[in-house]
Amino acid sequence: MTDPAQLTHVDQAGAARMVDVTAKPVTGREAVAAGRLRTTPEVVDLLRRDGLPKGDALAVGRLAGIMGAKRTPDLIPLCHPIALHGVTVDLRLTTDSVEITATARTADRTGVEMEALTAVAVAGLALVDMVKAVDPAASVDAVRVLSKSGGKTGAWRRPEGRP
Amino acid sequence: MTDPAQLTHVDQAGAARMVDVTAKPVTGREAVAAGRLRTTPEVVDLLRRDGLPKGDALAVGRLAGIMGAKRTPDLIPLCHPIALHGVTVDLRLTTDSVEITATARTADRTGVEMEALTAVAVAGLALVDMVKAVDPAASVDAVRVLSKSGGKTGAWRRPEGRP
Amino acid sequence: MTDPAQLTHVDQAGAARMVDVTAKPVTGREAVAAGRLRTTPEVVDLLRRDGLPKGDALAVGRLAGIMGAKRTPDLIPLCHPIALHGVTVDLRLTTDSVEITATARTADRTGVEMEALTAVAVAGLALVDMVKAVDPAASVDAVRVLSKSGGKTGAWRRPEGRP
Amino acid sequence: MTDPAQLTHVDQAGAARMVDVTAKPVTGREAVAAGRLRTTPEVVDLLRRDGLPKGDALAVGRLAGIMGAKRTPDLIPLCHPIALHGVTVDLRLTTDSVEITATARTADRTGVEMEALTAVAVAGLALVDMVKAVDPAASVDAVRVLSKSGGKTGAWRRPEGRP
Amino acid sequence: MTDPAQLTHVDQAGAARMVDVTAKPVTGREAVAAGRLRTTPEVVDLLRRDGLPKGDALAVGRLAGIMGAKRTPDLIPLCHPIALHGVTVDLRLTTDSVEITATARTADRTGVEMEALTAVAVAGLALVDMVKAVDPAASVDAVRVLSKSGGKTGAWRRPEGRP
Amino acid sequence: MTDPAQLTHVDQAGAARMVDVTAKPVTGREAVAAGRLRTTPEVVDLLRRDGLPKGDALAVGRLAGIMGAKRTPDLIPLCHPIALHGVTVDLRLTTDSVEITATARTADRTGVEMEALTAVAVAGLALVDMVKAVDPAASVDAVRVLSKSGGKTGAWRRPEGRP
Repeated sequence: MTDPAQLTHVDQAGAARMVDVTAKPVTGREAVAAGRLRTTPEVVDLLRRDGLPKGDALAVGRLAGIMGAKRTPDLIPLCHPIALHGVTVDLRLTTDSVEITATARTADRTGVEMEALTAVAVAGLALVDMVKAVDPAASVDAVRVLSKSGGKTGAWRRPEGRP
Repeated sequence: MTDPAQLTHVDQAGAARMVDVTAKPVTGREAVAAGRLRTTPEVVDLLRRDGLPKGDALAVGRLAGIMGAKRTPDLIPLCHPIALHGVTVDLRLTTDSVEITATARTADRTGVEMEALTAVAVAGLALVDMVKAVDPAASVDAVRVLSKSGGKTGAWRRPEGRP
Repeated sequence: MTDPAQLTHVDQAGAARMVDVTAKPVTGREAVAAGRLRTTPEVVDLLRRDGLPKGDALAVGRLAGIMGAKRTPDLIPLCHPIALHGVTVDLRLTTDSVEITATARTADRTGVEMEALTAVAVAGLALVDMVKAVDPAASVDAVRVLSKSGGKTGAWRRPEGRP
Repeated sequence: MTDPAQLTHVDQAGAARMVDVTAKPVTGREAVAAGRLRTTPEVVDLLRRDGLPKGDALAVGRLAGIMGAKRTPDLIPLCHPIALHGVTVDLRLTTDSVEITATARTADRTGVEMEALTAVAVAGLALVDMVKAVDPAASVDAVRVLSKSGGKTGAWRRPEGRP
Repeated sequence: MTDPAQLTHVDQAGAARMVDVTAKPVTGREAVAAGRLRTTPEVVDLLRRDGLPKGDALAVGRLAGIMGAKRTPDLIPLCHPIALHGVTVDLRLTTDSVEITATARTADRTGVEMEALTAVAVAGLALVDMVKAVDPAASVDAVRVLSKSGGKTGAWRRPEGRP
Repeated sequence: MTDPAQLTHVDQAGAARMVDVTAKPVTGREAVAAGRLRTTPEVVDLLRRDGLPKGDALAVGRLAGIMGAKRTPDLIPLCHPIALHGVTVDLRLTTDSVEITATARTADRTGVEMEALTAVAVAGLALVDMVKAVDPAASVDAVRVLSKSGGKTGAWRRPEGRP
């Protein structure tokens, strides 16, 4: 039978805490997360044409994602401050979306899933901010971990069945 | 024919800027955004049972969302710092999801869609952080504006056809 | 009979929210808070002697308090971001304490008690940090509002009976 | 005879600096701090009744304390940024107070007293913010280190005689 | 004879404070600041060639400047938090430098010189960070106000004689 | 022939990224940077006279620089968050300038040039803020690295020929 204490940051009484990781080993860890900006073909066309010299729209998304990853412990109440050693945010245009993939890496005591997820979500929000005058209905969708490696639990890959 | 300068924060040359809103009137404005944590029935059951005295899991989501809304101008590169006058984050449990709704209000020169969207996205990320030991495939989905009002453009309601 | 909803930032169901203040008038508001660093006569003597040219110990306390006041909405989950128009932090040495008084002022929709209290608390913590090698038992005591004025509730003065 | 340079972060000339700890060993360290919200029996009763399903008032205090601990190097001018590995904030209701205890842990080059003290002070301020409509005279009292361990100076326990 | 109290944020006794501006009128204000990244022709050539589709180097400078302007009250101890209504950062390549110009605008109680200067300085630092592998001697030079307008003191233009 | 990818944080396609440093060794590193506040003899005289008991003007510069160094990863988009182990900011008055020197130290995977440069720039900006009522034309000049040591590239000293 399930127990609320299985929730990551809640003790037996249900009170929030930042779990002590002092005893966990420092190992190389990586997490890959993805998500997407759902918008219209017209907006994707604008973003594509902005891919001219000095066109900053996609750069805003990439940089917001990278800087957002660094703010993860400020945003997620029970996340540990971590030595983030590398972050990339890749943006790929389809017909009516921008596919966002973020990779976060560290050599530390906890994983970097939350950093990768935060990079994707903030990149997505920053892209909404860029396009909202043209498409006020643009949305951020399917922000999820694709894979992670390192640490005690080792490699994990997203099951096929999960959306 | 479309023009990259239609993108909200990009000038004719495609360079990013924070648009000058000095001349815009101070009016009451509101935005409602929504999204969801997609997870498993087992996790929803854990969250429900945590709804006992001192159970903090859902409170973590609500507070992360409210505090995240206040960090919007730090996270979204071209957002204006704004006098945020009220934020609520409501969480509703379904069979296999937590439905997140955030309302942001201000009396200022620009709208608060980004604040409402950021509240939803950060609440969703914080909930992922709470449940990821049990469900590492939990995702944040459909972060979108439902409606907004106030300002020059007036009331807007999400079209039915948009996902 | 008392009702949990009387708590400042909790709705009828007990859920945290940032109360909407859009409709409140913009008025001049002021709050004065106080507190003290409790330490030893030896430490107070060190701080006094540091009051020589370029002695920064008390300046660290004053500046930490002023800068801390500006971080209030980042620290206090349900506080509104506010246009803080003036902050002073005064430090007065006694035999075995540093008496801290902070005044915060604004012309905005909500009061500035939390800003004045945060200034006092952070100034006190910064002073502890300065003296802790000499007095690891130094404490921050009696962080409280002395008076406030402005807004709908008008002037308030701390009752004599309260410690 | 005492020397201002004994103050933790001041050089011989009295100028503030962040002391170089590069050469200090990385060891497990822990600090426990405590303090209290002094208020009225009526308020404690409200907080107790809020301890119903979804009652967030005490959760706000706990989370503000944990998140505040992470902001310590932003708030305390000469504190080192540190790899904070665990934080707990415990709240215990008495007749007319909330007793706050925070524990901070790390494996790093400097101690975590300031992190534990900041957790207590910010938790206390957040509780004041929750109750101030009912008790504007609520105060934060006796923010102090109870014990610490690890590092060169080793274990320290608060002397009985100190308030 | 001159008086230390003429220094902007220091009282008669020399103690730092954040000056009370509650009584100052809300007026439209603008400040223009400039500065330059001094580097080598080889680096300028690299930046120019990066001005291809998706080349982010100059975008990083522009965005860092805009986001830095929003952090001004966090960085400059006695600066007021301000409603920043618009910021632009322009970068112009010469033979061996990048000329940086920033414009900040608000309708508030204090001027925005510090916001414009911070935008220039942070843009310059971010550009140093981009080029430092090729030119570790790159520097940020001549960060200064060119002009400001609005407020009681009205229009000011940099005197010709000042470097 | 030069390649944009030589730019520190840009990939072959010109897209910004935070370079992965997981594989780099943890070594002791130090960087010394310098710069200056250019102002008038009258202002330098005011700063000198403020060097009386409790005169905070120079302390504001020193503390802003130290605290600014800690904010480097928040300000510089592609900088790694780093375990900053020591920072000093020295201010020396000349006839018409304040010479600023900052030293940053760490034992980590990347260098601390950006931290030292940020300390100098923010100290300079804070001093401008202190003197701008008397000298609105004060500027921050020649923010540059003097030397660095540690890491794979080893010791570097600023070439004589560079301004």
